[in-house]
Amino acid sequence: MALERLAIVGTGLMGACVGLAAKRAGVAEVAGFDTDPASSAAALVRRAIDRASPTLEDAVAEAELVVVAVPVSRLLAVVAASLEASTDDCTVTDVGSTKAGVCSGLSSSRFVGGHPLGGSEAQGAEHASADLLRGVTWFLTPTSTTDPSRVDDVRRFVAGLGAKPAEVDPEVHDRLLVLTSQLPHALANLLLNQVAGADVDGHDPLAAAGRSFRELTRVAGANRDVWLDVFLDRADLLARALAEHRARVEGLEAALLAGDRELLGRWIDEAAGHRRRLLGED
Amino acid sequence: MALERLAIVGTGLMGACVGLAAKRAGVAEVAGFDTDPASSAAALVRRAIDRASPTLEDAVAEAELVVVAVPVSRLLAVVAASLEASTDDCTVTDVGSTKAGVCSGLSSSRFVGGHPLGGSEAQGAEHASADLLRGVTWFLTPTSTTDPSRVDDVRRFVAGLGAKPAEVDPEVHDRLLVLTSQLPHALANLLLNQVAGADVDGHDPLAAAGRSFRELTRVAGANRDVWLDVFLDRADLLARALAEHRARVEGLEAALLAGDRELLGRWIDEAAGHRRRLLGED
Repeated sequence: MALERLAIVGTGLMGACVGLAAKRAGVAEVAGFDTDPASSAAALVRRAIDRASPTLEDAVAEAELVVVAVPVSRLLAVVAASLEASTDDCTVTDVGSTKAGVCSGLSSSRFVGGHPLGGSEAQGAEHASADLLRGVTWFLTPTSTTDPSRVDDVRRFVAGLGAKPAEVDPEVHDRLLVLTSQLPHALANLLLNQVAGADVDGHDPLAAAGRSFRELTRVAGANRDVWLDVFLDRADLLARALAEHRARVEGLEAALLAGDRELLGRWIDEAAGHRRRLLGED
Repeated sequence: MALERLAIVGTGLMGACVGLAAKRAGVAEVAGFDTDPASSAAALVRRAIDRASPTLEDAVAEAELVVVAVPVSRLLAVVAASLEASTDDCTVTDVGSTKAGVCSGLSSSRFVGGHPLGGSEAQGAEHASADLLRGVTWFLTPTSTTDPSRVDDVRRFVAGLGAKPAEVDPEVHDRLLVLTSQLPHALANLLLNQVAGADVDGHDPLAAAGRSFRELTRVAGANRDVWLDVFLDRADLLARALAEHRARVEGLEAALLAGDRELLGRWIDEAAGHRRRLLGED
């Protein structure tokens, strides 16, 4: 990779994954900064960064590219600080799970919003792996103020890490992700809390849970603060998706109580068709 | 295993899994019958059965144990026919996903209801594997009319296949399974149909789906007729669980729209605690 000097601001799981993938791709020097020194120390031990900078300013001062990987609630402030502390040649991107807020809050031509669809329910650099980014879709969300050559730079960087860059409008990104990420995550929490909280004649339902229940609730309860930020940042969109879900649940209840086998059959057939499409079998 | 002659009635995925596990455990002869000759032929090719019987009567005539593995809607009739066609020494069990119907519909001392928490979203003997039953909980649901020595026989058989037998009341079984199996399965269908059916400014949401979405919808659309039977057999219980889910969704919407970070934090913490308990980390 042509990139020589990369800075990562926020060296938790995602920041460290980016660092590991960048080192594997041949980036010469990766500087890392985290407000928690233990986090940058862990990233250093994991060799996700080459040096732990004492300040954000130090980390980004000579960088050609800065990747901001902090919780969504701090995204706007940290991206703004990274733009402020870096040179005019430096491009700044981020990996936040919501994009409308940060993209509409900044008007710098040097900022390119980003969001890789990779990660894990674990936390911290010690669980990082370059493989968590390999082959994943990595959304880029430039706006009308973004310099197109910066978008090209980030696209090349992302592709160099083994991910698949895809451009999309920030608001469209958020509406897509509410459906494919936040709604399922919320349902996993709701399901687990309902089932685990039930007392069935003295039996613990969790003792009767098989493989599919474990899979369906894998993400439940994960990364509290990260998800609180994500849920609240686009609470409007998530509440709307949940309201639609609730209407669909009510329809299913009615079909069940009416014993409407035909309607239920069409409902399962529809899901089967979507599943084939999701797996690329159609 | 002391068992010499086993009969499997219904040689689809589950029946074939039982056959493969039984052969591995040393059962001398496994006879199989299916109303669809192609199904018993596939089980024979897979070596899940030693011979494909032309009739149910032929399959069970000399069996010491009969395992009925047919869709829930045919369970009562096929178990009754198996009891009728077998000798007084023969024990009959089943692997159906709902238990109250078949257990309350029969009063034979020779019948022991059963349900292994194994399987897969695939169909047919060609996808069967003895490993799908290894280590799983296998519920046994004897009633007051069941001969306790028959329960012992089935418990030994199940343990010999590598599963973990657990006795439970049939109605309690159904209430547990509605929560841990049918509710999550229904939510997977609902989620996939909502997300796949959405048009986000011309973008297909499925193209933005990552690993957790794929996992959460793995069972969606699977085994249409099997699940139609299961959903409708205890539609009362499932509708009740869905109504409770719907009330919880409504509560979440309110917390999101109110921006209630504290309540949402407690909700995630609760899920995290349940998840640790589910994984046995507490």
